[in-house]
Amino acid sequence: MLAIKNALSAVKSRSLSRCISSCQIMFKEHGEPLDVLYEKTQDIGPLGPNDVLVNYRASPINPSDINTIQGTYPLKPKLPGVPGNEGAGYVLECGPGVSKLKPGDLVMPGEASLGTWRSAAVYNESQLIKLNPKLDIMQAAFLNINPSTAYLMLKNYVDLKPGDCVIQNGATSAVGIYVMQMCKLMGINTINIFRARETPEMTEATRQALLDFGGTLVVTEDELEAYEDIQRFGKIRIGFNCVGGKPTLALIKRLDYSGVLVTYGGMARQPIPTPIGPLIFKDLQLRGFWLSGRENQSGNKEARLAMLEEITDWILSGKIKIAPFESIPHTDWKSAVSKSIFKDDIPRNLPRKIVLSFPEIL
Amino acid sequence: MLAIKNALSAVKSRSLSRCISSCQIMFKEHGEPLDVLYEKTQDIGPLGPNDVLVNYRASPINPSDINTIQGTYPLKPKLPGVPGNEGAGYVLECGPGVSKLKPGDLVMPGEASLGTWRSAAVYNESQLIKLNPKLDIMQAAFLNINPSTAYLMLKNYVDLKPGDCVIQNGATSAVGIYVMQMCKLMGINTINIFRARETPEMTEATRQALLDFGGTLVVTEDELEAYEDIQRFGKIRIGFNCVGGKPTLALIKRLDYSGVLVTYGGMARQPIPTPIGPLIFKDLQLRGFWLSGRENQSGNKEARLAMLEEITDWILSGKIKIAPFESIPHTDWKSAVSKSIFKDDIPRNLPRKIVLSFPEIL
Repeated sequence: MLAIKNALSAVKSRSLSRCISSCQIMFKEHGEPLDVLYEKTQDIGPLGPNDVLVNYRASPINPSDINTIQGTYPLKPKLPGVPGNEGAGYVLECGPGVSKLKPGDLVMPGEASLGTWRSAAVYNESQLIKLNPKLDIMQAAFLNINPSTAYLMLKNYVDLKPGDCVIQNGATSAVGIYVMQMCKLMGINTINIFRARETPEMTEATRQALLDFGGTLVVTEDELEAYEDIQRFGKIRIGFNCVGGKPTLALIKRLDYSGVLVTYGGMARQPIPTPIGPLIFKDLQLRGFWLSGRENQSGNKEARLAMLEEITDWILSGKIKIAPFESIPHTDWKSAVSKSIFKDDIPRNLPRKIVLSFPEIL
Repeated sequence: MLAIKNALSAVKSRSLSRCISSCQIMFKEHGEPLDVLYEKTQDIGPLGPNDVLVNYRASPINPSDINTIQGTYPLKPKLPGVPGNEGAGYVLECGPGVSKLKPGDLVMPGEASLGTWRSAAVYNESQLIKLNPKLDIMQAAFLNINPSTAYLMLKNYVDLKPGDCVIQNGATSAVGIYVMQMCKLMGINTINIFRARETPEMTEATRQALLDFGGTLVVTEDELEAYEDIQRFGKIRIGFNCVGGKPTLALIKRLDYSGVLVTYGGMARQPIPTPIGPLIFKDLQLRGFWLSGRENQSGNKEARLAMLEEITDWILSGKIKIAPFESIPHTDWKSAVSKSIFKDDIPRNLPRKIVLSFPEIL
């Protein structure tokens, strides 16, 4: 009886109801993305009983994707592979053993390294997270990495109270923009440091854009240096650093007693010249935040789903807007990748995150 | 009735049974110690009801004392003042309201900045800690700062288990010597980094001295670099840094996942060039330890007394030896202070802590 059931299930699991090919960007060796990436159309194999066929529609390109291709990221996917840790799409078909997902559901990958730079992919049901269908595809695509990073950095290190203050550099980054919006929701002030632009007009336009996202004080490093009344924004209990190098001192210097500096990026590619005095006498802490590390470690899926639900509610109620982005069709992936590689020159305005878009599979 | 009682008590409180002068080292302004320190004999005033007259017999000179005189330490005593945060002596006389101390008791200051570089001093009973009378005066004098620092750094940051490993630089320092002895007691391995001496023979003698104190591995930084089998000493979960600057990287590099680097000194007077990758991807932490800060903060006197009792037991049972020292009579204080000022040149052998000794007041 069991044998018959298994045989039936095996037949069923191979019965993908139509022929599907996935357009995917791939790499078979590490190197500079434009040198090693190539395009490949791949036929989608039969679905196993717990498999889910996903049609990706939007896959953001993050710095960690670029670093993964370069081979400088600690997560090393098996090669040849498809890059991309983030994306959103719709379920096209499910294997017979799939119970929590159905065709039409909006989903995102629940793990890192699942490869999102492709129009279609097959995963085990357990590897996907079902999202609120009210999210539009871009809100869904950007839900995971940057908002979760902002959220967890705000929640995990110090017990922030209304009236406290957060300081951050790289304020024009997507994480920076979510930090200032979430802080505003929580009644927490933010001091946001950004680089002056080429002209005073561009600098003012960038500042205004960040103020519109809810930043309390938006200043260049020089302006902060001259700022006299910094105390009035509250106790600066935590700093978020994605720059590294000497500019990080602007944060360390202003942390309150027992403050924490959390580093989540190092765009300046320079170590932090950590002064010993404040570490000892102000009881400061330097910590690092890595979303994938924490996720892998904690294994607390329920807490993660609750967080994603809270962020979803904020987005659907308009309390949090997604950071600026530019959608580029996957056929133009070379231009999308090229625009995503970090360059030291100062952007003219607020940087936009690049997202690869894929067509709907009908 | 109350008025008569108060008057009687006032009379009593002035009745110091003999004339006492204190020989004390003082400074009335900040500067280089040998420039600003001077000697002064001061008559001891009347004892208040809760006052205790202490005859200091041994007062160690710590780097923090030198920095306090230089004005670079965050604790700023009222000037003119007597330097010294550490010392041990015997109670000579007590005011009538003193209940927990009596003449002959062995005591040490229970707070920072009480000024120990003097033969006699009057404190409120609450400012003193009564020590086990079995301790000899040198064991008592060195009980507080260095052993407490080692103890609290080992207990407060990670939950060390037998078989784990601690890495430290400045291993020839007094704190370093207590760290390796306490770790040995706790079944924890230690990797101890020291500077090579002028000759190979001196280097070997220094290494042997540290091995005799219980260090598991005692190496120069170059030797550690070439060491291949570091894993066999256990998980390196915490590092203790009193050097700072680039040499600190030797510790950071070898910390295990989620390891903590605790900085308690900065003899190299250079910031720590903290690499961002390990902070983020290895979830490392940089913390600072300041004994006075923690004591002031916690206010947990019971825990502190329990710790001092545990350290006392270890010393009395011979499980922990006090770090090498040199006792210098207070009359020769200039030489004592001069020997205590940190110099960059490499010592020929194991450095000895300097302790000012004062005569018994009979």
